[in-house]
Amino acid sequence: MPHLVILYSGNLDCDVDMTAVCRALADAMLTIRDEEDEQVFPTGGARVLAYPAPSFAIGDGGAAAVAAGESGEYGFAYLNLRMGRGRSAVVQRRAGEIIAEAARTLFAPLLQKRRIGLTFQIDVGPEVYDAKFGNLHPLFQKGKN
Amino acid sequence: MPHLVILYSGNLDCDVDMTAVCRALADAMLTIRDEEDEQVFPTGGARVLAYPAPSFAIGDGGAAAVAAGESGEYGFAYLNLRMGRGRSAVVQRRAGEIIAEAARTLFAPLLQKRRIGLTFQIDVGPEVYDAKFGNLHPLFQKGKN
Amino acid sequence: MPHLVILYSGNLDCDVDMTAVCRALADAMLTIRDEEDEQVFPTGGARVLAYPAPSFAIGDGGAAAVAAGESGEYGFAYLNLRMGRGRSAVVQRRAGEIIAEAARTLFAPLLQKRRIGLTFQIDVGPEVYDAKFGNLHPLFQKGKN
Repeated sequence: MPHLVILYSGNLDCDVDMTAVCRALADAMLTIRDEEDEQVFPTGGARVLAYPAPSFAIGDGGAAAVAAGESGEYGFAYLNLRMGRGRSAVVQRRAGEIIAEAARTLFAPLLQKRRIGLTFQIDVGPEVYDAKFGNLHPLFQKGKN
Repeated sequence: MPHLVILYSGNLDCDVDMTAVCRALADAMLTIRDEEDEQVFPTGGARVLAYPAPSFAIGDGGAAAVAAGESGEYGFAYLNLRMGRGRSAVVQRRAGEIIAEAARTLFAPLLQKRRIGLTFQIDVGPEVYDAKFGNLHPLFQKGKN
Repeated sequence: MPHLVILYSGNLDCDVDMTAVCRALADAMLTIRDEEDEQVFPTGGARVLAYPAPSFAIGDGGAAAVAAGESGEYGFAYLNLRMGRGRSAVVQRRAGEIIAEAARTLFAPLLQKRRIGLTFQIDVGPEVYDAKFGNLHPLFQKGKN
């Protein structure tokens, strides 16, 4: 954790370099610091994944835009960050603001060109069981020593 | 919001036009009205995305169907709608019934042909931060005036 | 239900047979038994789907590994099981342990070769509406008689 999953309409791929978006959002996540100025998300735990949907439907399908003389090719991206429990409300809001600001900057050129729905939410999940068994974290703990 | 995400086994693509399913479900979402006969979901907020899974496993992998003289090629679709907080239980149930009915109709031909697992759930999410920064909604607010 | 969804960085496909992973995890799910030695998850309800992400970013992007003389090509898999409500904490923990153990075994060869983040969580969902309308379950109920 944290995991940021981007679900988006596949028709954005022509206008967005989603790998660059993933990287920029991961970088933003790693800048977030808590009230004690400690990094909130462990470096090895920051993961961003983006999935273009091959099939989708958005709003009225384009009718309102066409009626307004625009392209009816709407796009959509949903950014959903799941973070672990136990962070303060201050840290949650700070994380939200920093990532939202990064996303706004990244998608600004797209919003100049097209009609796009963009939603970003942070969830603190309803997990009843949690296990981590990778080998990424030790790389960074080692680096600290 | 609302977002309806369809996760399904890729072996359904040969039998279902998933883009048409997305459109029909988005249309169904837009028909839902509350106790005051107001449209529940804003037109610009209705989004449906469908993702075929290239790898999957279902049930016993087909053994029971083969033993019964049927095809062991099971399929599966999971429809998950996430809607915003603050709607009444009546509206939540009404949304569920309308979308489930639309899904039943859409998948009926498939259920005539194949063994398919179909689950539909509406979640009201555990978000601790929520931001919307697209440019779709103004198109419809403008349309209202 | 239950549904186990695997979101993973697409760069694992070269080293993992994800269809085999799905099958092995479904098999593990079907072995779970409750306090009365009854099968916890109905055979027709066990579903595993795996989605490679074409775009992703992980940790520091590889810098720490490269600095340590390793490959900077991190991978990542997130296993998320959603199960129905109403199971005891004992059953939830047992499900977690059995599936985590299966996942550990399945990913062990990969962890020998590469730096991978692996997270597994079980959620009991926040659904406000739930409908099932497939035709898989009757196949197994029939089989019981």
